[in-house]
Amino acid sequence: MNNDEYYMQLAIKLARKGTGYVSPNPLVGAVIVKNGQIIGKGYHKQFGGHHAEINAIQNARQSVAGATLYVNLEPCCHEGKTPPCAESIIKNKLAKVVIGSIDSNPLVSCRGINYLQSQGIEVKTGVLENECRRLNEIFFHYMETGLPFVTVKYAQSFDGRIATESGQSQWISSEAARKFGHQLRAGHDAVLVGMGTVIKDDPELTVRHVRGRNPLRVVVDTGLTIPEKAKLLQNLSGAGTLIATVKKADDRKFQRIAASGAAIITTDADNQGKVDLKKLLKILAARGISSVLVEGGAQIITSILKNDLASRLVAIIAPKIIGRGIEAVGDLQISDLQHAKKLSFQKIQRLGPDIVIDSRLR
Amino acid sequence: MNNDEYYMQLAIKLARKGTGYVSPNPLVGAVIVKNGQIIGKGYHKQFGGHHAEINAIQNARQSVAGATLYVNLEPCCHEGKTPPCAESIIKNKLAKVVIGSIDSNPLVSCRGINYLQSQGIEVKTGVLENECRRLNEIFFHYMETGLPFVTVKYAQSFDGRIATESGQSQWISSEAARKFGHQLRAGHDAVLVGMGTVIKDDPELTVRHVRGRNPLRVVVDTGLTIPEKAKLLQNLSGAGTLIATVKKADDRKFQRIAASGAAIITTDADNQGKVDLKKLLKILAARGISSVLVEGGAQIITSILKNDLASRLVAIIAPKIIGRGIEAVGDLQISDLQHAKKLSFQKIQRLGPDIVIDSRLR
Repeated sequence: MNNDEYYMQLAIKLARKGTGYVSPNPLVGAVIVKNGQIIGKGYHKQFGGHHAEINAIQNARQSVAGATLYVNLEPCCHEGKTPPCAESIIKNKLAKVVIGSIDSNPLVSCRGINYLQSQGIEVKTGVLENECRRLNEIFFHYMETGLPFVTVKYAQSFDGRIATESGQSQWISSEAARKFGHQLRAGHDAVLVGMGTVIKDDPELTVRHVRGRNPLRVVVDTGLTIPEKAKLLQNLSGAGTLIATVKKADDRKFQRIAASGAAIITTDADNQGKVDLKKLLKILAARGISSVLVEGGAQIITSILKNDLASRLVAIIAPKIIGRGIEAVGDLQISDLQHAKKLSFQKIQRLGPDIVIDSRLR
Repeated sequence: MNNDEYYMQLAIKLARKGTGYVSPNPLVGAVIVKNGQIIGKGYHKQFGGHHAEINAIQNARQSVAGATLYVNLEPCCHEGKTPPCAESIIKNKLAKVVIGSIDSNPLVSCRGINYLQSQGIEVKTGVLENECRRLNEIFFHYMETGLPFVTVKYAQSFDGRIATESGQSQWISSEAARKFGHQLRAGHDAVLVGMGTVIKDDPELTVRHVRGRNPLRVVVDTGLTIPEKAKLLQNLSGAGTLIATVKKADDRKFQRIAASGAAIITTDADNQGKVDLKKLLKILAARGISSVLVEGGAQIITSILKNDLASRLVAIIAPKIIGRGIEAVGDLQISDLQHAKKLSFQKIQRLGPDIVIDSRLR
């Protein structure tokens, strides 16, 4: 690892501290180096707060004039909630900027770099680019596709069942795994479930076992059958709920739910008459939701996978064998192994008695 | 780790060198220590060869009188293929014997220890006992239950399918995983498959991708429908084949297969009229088969698990999602999660693009 990579690694580490607080902004960390010494560090702490570059400049313990700035993401040059970073870099007379990954935001992409260069600042790009892209995979996906980054998560028995044949699923996995599940929730803007899960488990879908923000709770409810006493429709001040249905606003129940404080939207139906999940995701993206955690059930998971809407798959595998039961993934109409959906395993870890396999769809 | 554990660890390491060559004997290693120096080492190299203790004594570079012998398994005191080890320990005037695990063989169990003590030799037991028992899990299971140690192995997609709905299974896993599969075969006395697998894949079930002994190839063929041109019935000099059927010896095909050089046996039928797997395993045990690798298909795997005949489960998980297809494990008539079969995950490793999860049934 050379010096540039060393400082970039540090910027990545700083950036990570914003996890769960900056969305839909990217995670950004910055390190300022002068004469071989780190003189300033900063990161983007929360949505609406200063960008990392500004924090690093403000935290510097001596003049940053002539120094090199390391930042995992291209500095912005548009007016967002805070003044553009490129301007601040120029004003403070930094000599060089080393960048990990180019910003996909069409308002920024390469314009930040061009602007810095036009003002005589040396720019180097592509340092630990893969790591930097992975750090902000949610942000990049959101910017580049206009859809939220979708993670599918489920707990299964060793033989791939998420419930017994009678539907019993509490609990296949351990308490440690459930805590991990709450961590995942806190790292996503929204959590999404189908009506089967609501009927069967009456879940809260909030973040309780760890510290973190509650995600928006999205229920796919084609026929608007959600019980009005469901936990997801109570105590809406702590966590918001959005019901997606194909029913129209003239429906009586639609109106009662809207009046209860939950959000409710009508989406187009897909060719089976159900909520069109891709259209729903587009609506969520337009509302600033850059990441969605799909927690089940099997029907929603299958539909998400079949329509290639997921980017990440997290499976918790419990040391149990159930035999015939309910599988996480149903019919994908794949008859040839060649057409199987391809994954790459990113991280495999033990969690209490369970195993967590974290993978990306390719 | 104290001195006793250090030397026992070394004995275990030596013992492992016999893997694949000593069955149905246990893996045994021995270390002789005198005045804080290792003066002799040995292990059981192959079935019928000298036991570890004898090899260590013979390899010693000075007199073993007054020395301490470390051995992972209680020394034998019956006449087997080689003279009893306890006798040799006494004759060579060793002062002390440190033992990892007690031998389950009814011909040996504790009689070796009692005999050594009666001859004035100090005996210490239980050093790294768990590790020593795990090392010889096959041997202990075989001795204690009178049945072979059964390992179930399959390659599955991430969503738990061993084949597409049309039965396509070649290849779900990578070449690295298949090599690993051959290693597993070499470590078992027999490999067992159902007729579905024979019809579909026409497998050879020999050890080809690694060095090692070919296991006995056992086919469960209730109705004796195996094609006489099946690879398993050719070239029987390199690897033996045993067909288990409920058909009797007066059957014409039975007679032709017997004449071809393959072994063929009639077993009792279970309550579904199929080959009774437990009875088959008993017959195999009586023939000196201490371990069986079950390679499929789903029907055999399900039946083995349902009847609690398996001790170990090795799943190769490929980074693919297939959706509806053939599952490794079918109906176990488990309706309550409480009654799920319990596993413990022993080892999780990456193998090329795949993951191997090696677990034990509890």
